[in-house]
Amino acid sequence: MTGEKEKLGLIGFGAFGRLTARHLSPWFDIYAHDPAATDSDGHATLTDLAAAAACPTIILAVPVEALEATLTAIRPHLRPDALVIDVGSVKVKPARLMEDLLPPGVRIVGTHPLFGPQSGKHGIAGLRIAICAVRDAPDARRDARRVAAFCRRALALKVFQVSPEDHDREAATVQGLTHLIARLLLAMEPLPTRMTTASFDRLMQAVDMVRHDSPAVFRAIERDNPFAAEVRDRFFALADAARGDLDAE
Amino acid sequence: MTGEKEKLGLIGFGAFGRLTARHLSPWFDIYAHDPAATDSDGHATLTDLAAAAACPTIILAVPVEALEATLTAIRPHLRPDALVIDVGSVKVKPARLMEDLLPPGVRIVGTHPLFGPQSGKHGIAGLRIAICAVRDAPDARRDARRVAAFCRRALALKVFQVSPEDHDREAATVQGLTHLIARLLLAMEPLPTRMTTASFDRLMQAVDMVRHDSPAVFRAIERDNPFAAEVRDRFFALADAARGDLDAE
Repeated sequence: MTGEKEKLGLIGFGAFGRLTARHLSPWFDIYAHDPAATDSDGHATLTDLAAAAACPTIILAVPVEALEATLTAIRPHLRPDALVIDVGSVKVKPARLMEDLLPPGVRIVGTHPLFGPQSGKHGIAGLRIAICAVRDAPDARRDARRVAAFCRRALALKVFQVSPEDHDREAATVQGLTHLIARLLLAMEPLPTRMTTASFDRLMQAVDMVRHDSPAVFRAIERDNPFAAEVRDRFFALADAARGDLDAE
Repeated sequence: MTGEKEKLGLIGFGAFGRLTARHLSPWFDIYAHDPAATDSDGHATLTDLAAAAACPTIILAVPVEALEATLTAIRPHLRPDALVIDVGSVKVKPARLMEDLLPPGVRIVGTHPLFGPQSGKHGIAGLRIAICAVRDAPDARRDARRVAAFCRRALALKVFQVSPEDHDREAATVQGLTHLIARLLLAMEPLPTRMTTASFDRLMQAVDMVRHDSPAVFRAIERDNPFAAEVRDRFFALADAARGDLDAE
């Protein structure tokens, strides 16, 4: 212990990047880069891409659809042994991109915090995070274990160490259905708020937790998850069957 | 105050009838009739139809689809000034049936407790009930107000006094959507329980509250509510549109 905190580069300082900075600033000096950000919330120092990318650990809090361009941009500035961590809602595609585009010595861990600015607004202790070792090497598994241990001990998160494929298969259902149902209910607003039932209240709480998620989050979940189409097709087929049953009654 | 409790007839002693007896037994001596019931839970005395129907107040805790036959069966046994209360999930159809089939002097109040054995299992204080005056007469409105006052003061329920039409219009959305979405999610089980998000957890809590509702409840909500088809058609049309958008992306 030297009393000095290690530097952490944060690429992307939107709603999730800010949540990340808030919870990691007790442990790291955070250098955040986001061309769209004008204030640092007090938890990070805003800086340029090169400076943020030169930190020993870099967290990529950018939309999945911006990941490829971000990796290409940071690559020239990375330390040879940097640890790069993404936080995307899907894991197969980011894992493949990071493996393909980052230099061989760079260590990679995929994570998916299963919460966001809404569900994490009263604290994140007890919430869940999925962690994936990306490069198939003993070092990669050790890095994933270290990130997992930090999340468990420092942040009190519930940690699931899984493969990117297992993650995406489960998330296709969990997030795919939640966002699809929320999208349908949001399109039906205004909805009743007076004579509601406890179960309807729960449905609307679910909707409220994702209503401010960006369209990019919805696209990542529905388009960039290789298993999403399958889950969605099943939901729509069941909806068709229910419609048929109800019309026949 | 004589120290003696008034008699209340309860026709139907299924899950909801039992919940009713549990919460009304401090105020009434409950005489319950249900051909399928073999034990009284200690909150009611099981009796025959004629005895239950001869009480000053009668609550009909039967499925909406059994209401017509129930009204015909109790009619000969009712006091001329009996107060008859239904608890169905829809209100237009029961109001019309009670008005048509019960003798003119009999007082009628329609109610819809917006909770059930699941959502009410830890107590009903603070939960909601809709109350409808049925016969368009000063007496009918007075009866509805008395039932409302009892629900508010004795049971600590949130009371909404509405017309049967206004009730059904709002319930078509609240209950129609909840049960439709629950039906689709139940058909997709087993669903993930491990890497879930807070919003998915809320969705599944909503499902859990209605998963044990009888098929008759689902039929009443979807088939006996005159506004249900309209809400459902809108939901299915939005689902079709979402499918089209997602497939095109």
